[in-house]
Amino acid sequence: MSEYAAPLDDILFALDGLVDFEGLTALEPYGHVDADGVAGLLEEFGRLMAEVWGPTNQLGDEVGSHVDGDRVVVPAEYVKAYDAYVEAGWGAVAFDPAYGGGGFPWVVGIAMQEMFNSANMALAMCPLLSQGAIDAILHHGTEEQREKYLPRMVSGEWSGTMNLTEADAGSDVGALRARAVRQDDGTYRITGQKIFISFGEHDLTSNIIHLVLARTPDSPAGTKGISCFIVPKYLVGDDGELGVRNDVKVVSVEHKMGIRSSPTCVLAFGDEGEGAVGYLIGEENSGMRTMFTMMNNARLGVGVEGLGLAERSLQRAVAYANERRQGYAPGAARGEKSAIVDHPDVRRSLLTMRSITEALRGLAFLVAEQIDRAKYAPAEEDRATAQEIVDLLIPLTKSLCTDEAERVTSIGIQIHGGMGYIEETGAAQHYRDAKITQIYEGTNGIQAMDLIGRKMPMRAGGVFTDHIARMRATVAALEAGGDDLAPIAEELGRAVDAAERAGIWVMEQGMADPVVALSVATPFQRLLALTTTGWVMGRQALLASARLAAGEGDAEFLEQKLVSARFFVGSVLPEVHGLVGPATSGAEELRAARF
Amino acid sequence: MSEYAAPLDDILFALDGLVDFEGLTALEPYGHVDADGVAGLLEEFGRLMAEVWGPTNQLGDEVGSHVDGDRVVVPAEYVKAYDAYVEAGWGAVAFDPAYGGGGFPWVVGIAMQEMFNSANMALAMCPLLSQGAIDAILHHGTEEQREKYLPRMVSGEWSGTMNLTEADAGSDVGALRARAVRQDDGTYRITGQKIFISFGEHDLTSNIIHLVLARTPDSPAGTKGISCFIVPKYLVGDDGELGVRNDVKVVSVEHKMGIRSSPTCVLAFGDEGEGAVGYLIGEENSGMRTMFTMMNNARLGVGVEGLGLAERSLQRAVAYANERRQGYAPGAARGEKSAIVDHPDVRRSLLTMRSITEALRGLAFLVAEQIDRAKYAPAEEDRATAQEIVDLLIPLTKSLCTDEAERVTSIGIQIHGGMGYIEETGAAQHYRDAKITQIYEGTNGIQAMDLIGRKMPMRAGGVFTDHIARMRATVAALEAGGDDLAPIAEELGRAVDAAERAGIWVMEQGMADPVVALSVATPFQRLLALTTTGWVMGRQALLASARLAAGEGDAEFLEQKLVSARFFVGSVLPEVHGLVGPATSGAEELRAARF
Repeated sequence: MSEYAAPLDDILFALDGLVDFEGLTALEPYGHVDADGVAGLLEEFGRLMAEVWGPTNQLGDEVGSHVDGDRVVVPAEYVKAYDAYVEAGWGAVAFDPAYGGGGFPWVVGIAMQEMFNSANMALAMCPLLSQGAIDAILHHGTEEQREKYLPRMVSGEWSGTMNLTEADAGSDVGALRARAVRQDDGTYRITGQKIFISFGEHDLTSNIIHLVLARTPDSPAGTKGISCFIVPKYLVGDDGELGVRNDVKVVSVEHKMGIRSSPTCVLAFGDEGEGAVGYLIGEENSGMRTMFTMMNNARLGVGVEGLGLAERSLQRAVAYANERRQGYAPGAARGEKSAIVDHPDVRRSLLTMRSITEALRGLAFLVAEQIDRAKYAPAEEDRATAQEIVDLLIPLTKSLCTDEAERVTSIGIQIHGGMGYIEETGAAQHYRDAKITQIYEGTNGIQAMDLIGRKMPMRAGGVFTDHIARMRATVAALEAGGDDLAPIAEELGRAVDAAERAGIWVMEQGMADPVVALSVATPFQRLLALTTTGWVMGRQALLASARLAAGEGDAEFLEQKLVSARFFVGSVLPEVHGLVGPATSGAEELRAARF
Repeated sequence: MSEYAAPLDDILFALDGLVDFEGLTALEPYGHVDADGVAGLLEEFGRLMAEVWGPTNQLGDEVGSHVDGDRVVVPAEYVKAYDAYVEAGWGAVAFDPAYGGGGFPWVVGIAMQEMFNSANMALAMCPLLSQGAIDAILHHGTEEQREKYLPRMVSGEWSGTMNLTEADAGSDVGALRARAVRQDDGTYRITGQKIFISFGEHDLTSNIIHLVLARTPDSPAGTKGISCFIVPKYLVGDDGELGVRNDVKVVSVEHKMGIRSSPTCVLAFGDEGEGAVGYLIGEENSGMRTMFTMMNNARLGVGVEGLGLAERSLQRAVAYANERRQGYAPGAARGEKSAIVDHPDVRRSLLTMRSITEALRGLAFLVAEQIDRAKYAPAEEDRATAQEIVDLLIPLTKSLCTDEAERVTSIGIQIHGGMGYIEETGAAQHYRDAKITQIYEGTNGIQAMDLIGRKMPMRAGGVFTDHIARMRATVAALEAGGDDLAPIAEELGRAVDAAERAGIWVMEQGMADPVVALSVATPFQRLLALTTTGWVMGRQALLASARLAAGEGDAEFLEQKLVSARFFVGSVLPEVHGLVGPATSGAEELRAARF
């Protein structure tokens, strides 16, 4: 069986190479951070993931989580794995030191997320959801709320959840009906039922801090009438001690295709009396603003789940392909059969997996870098630019990383042949786990709506054209890089042309007839996202080439980074040319179809 | 919950429209067949599938099959469903009347296969495997063997299996080690272990006729030294009565990601003594020829599994999209929320699913038509041409139908949002089931090797260029069809250009350096297969347009066939333009990569 090993060199290449890490450490709050220290930190975290978390992944999938009375029981091994994570303070690394955090850049947290998702995505959802809840309280809570909840959420002693979805309110969150009634003491009483609440109940932490969207009486319809509440599983006294159990009960957990050990709960609020006690975050009817704060981070987090699964699947496939012997590869001497890694089609499969995984990593880390810059760049203008980049790239990153996770884990099964379909092999789990990432935090179709409806129109298309210009600058740098990089420049340049042409068409149509723009949203999103990863791989080629020329780093490693970049640009990126047609095809057939 | 309904109109449009069904009934052995009779037959079969088989699909997935002593227990409901199939004589429809068959064209059998795969693919594997075994005995067995085994296999009273794979002999079938030793009475004694034997043991039939590949002592190495044997579970006396149980025992069944109720067995031959009794088919060392006979049919059958799953997934998605209400579609009046079928991106998803499913159906049926012609066309030249078409199209059909089944069932989950990930919904099962179709009967990578290594070189490329010419003839017919069809002609023409260019490149490279051709086999296979389905949809457009002009048939139905064809050609087919680069990219990066 293939065990996970943290791909530290690859992570550091992206983190302190593709990302301008030195630039980040020059930002005021990150002055205490240096690259060597981060490398050491990631190495240690990678060891925990490889040695303690990784081995729990498959058994968690087999055992799953289940309801026992009003408790949810997760696999017993998770307790040890989670405790080790909390005890070493890993959950705190990328949070504000004011509440016990380590004050590291978010991109370092993202590198850690990659690893915990590779090791055990289902378990990783517990800290991932907590991060979202921390973010919401940090940005929108009162100082009193922050002091009461954040330190033990940041440490991981308590976990957090996000309660948005109801049976009739999924993508249409504005349709939710949970009620919150204000009491004389300023607290609220929450009633209603929420579904799809990840880690809504579990026995890993001593308390669970639910963030719950609900409506106050007479609130406006739709998303304008939604408020956000803190609803702790156990009420927390002013002394920080846990008090009585709140009226939040798990009704059931779902039986899912993947992430089986992550308890996906139906939660009932206020079933036993006048409602669960809740504390308003921010103001009434401002709940969607709170949600939007979390959304970019949460969507990037889901993209990183895709990245983590792709990496794990790749490692498993490479190990198997080196071990399994079948037939003779072209030119192989008769005698011992060839390892299948020597068969050309298997090599294509593996290089497809590897180059895509590297591209996703670069994309996710670059977005995280901009999240850091959007918070802490000294000049307001730079912060604004960084935020624009984040806003544009989030739907692209969420959708592409998760769609490609499906592709990579699918190829991962194929490499195992029939064994890949047998659950004990482990490859199938990654594929089953990956499918949820295309769905939650907004399906990839919803991401495409966001891209078309909110992101492309930003600054009247200016954010998009700036992005095109940034990619063209990389093309120019590649052109100036000599014969070795010229083919990459040419392919990337053609892709950028295609993306620009389609983008302009989409914006023109969007103004003339939004239905047309919405009709082509999905292929356009893929076209722009693939082009953006082509740009990431163009940067990878520039970086590897520059380091090789300077004699910095391991030459063999850097050569392989060039191989990945060239393959990606020559054999993955060209898909964009098949997307221009669909992305500019209009809505005529969709209107005429009868279902 | 969505129940399966046989898509009779769609099936008949392909069967008696895209396929020249009248031409088939003019062939000598099909003289008794007429289109109306077939329509009635398919309607009745569709009813059995919808009412009896369909409802067993999800429960079979939940219950699975398990070993109990030396038996394998399949879900109890399968017994009733299978018996109903046997009692009505459905298994016999497309077989030789000499052995109790109905003597219908194979394409009618393929239409039935689509339905039984939609209804319950896991259960359908039992008759599907039997068909392969019947084929082998029919073409390579002695008359005595045919008379002894075929009537009750054709009727479905007995089932059949194919025993090829061993632990170290998967794609490399020549590596198998099972032994067969000839006895004085002319029988053989078989020893060894086989894996991945679908329906290798079960309690649906009174006997199981295993076809087993094994080596006789001193046989040549590799595939040249393989012989094929009939190994019945119960020996059959000359009077046709069942005798003693043979020494074939189930060791275990696999725990798989999908088709969970189809028992995938490890079978031990001869564990209890001197070997299981086997009867040689054909001559010693001719086993691979017997296997090749079955292969085209078996590979088409797997493609049709993909088609069946796509259709079932489409039906489920359409039902849900009409029922589920979320948000307001563009232009919808406020009040009741819109059914999600009204949202443009959902419409794109559904039309993608539908147009692909129609294209796969057309492709599979057209291949089956050529299988019939290859057997029974009066002129030898016509039979040879038909066989060439079959040989070229089989890897394309097997790989494309199964890769697209993955895509269609994946979109099917997406349309359900979070509910799609919950097993009870049923959409996830189709996705899990679909994955095996890309793997067995030769992984799709193996199909690509077959295309490059055996099929493209046929008649020095002449079979390929004839196929290109046939597609160009359809382009010309579309061009002559007026303004309505001209855009289809243009898109299809561009795709054919791309496929031809890449095909010529691949053949040239293949002669110069086979590694290069093998390195691009997978993208080339997809490019040629997609173009071929584009041609199928071009023919669909021509047919619908001609029937509309002649006032034949339901105008609304025919209009929708045109909508599907236009959408496919405009939004699915253009992927080919992204494949030309990868399909002609060479092997340089693959050679340089280190794994």
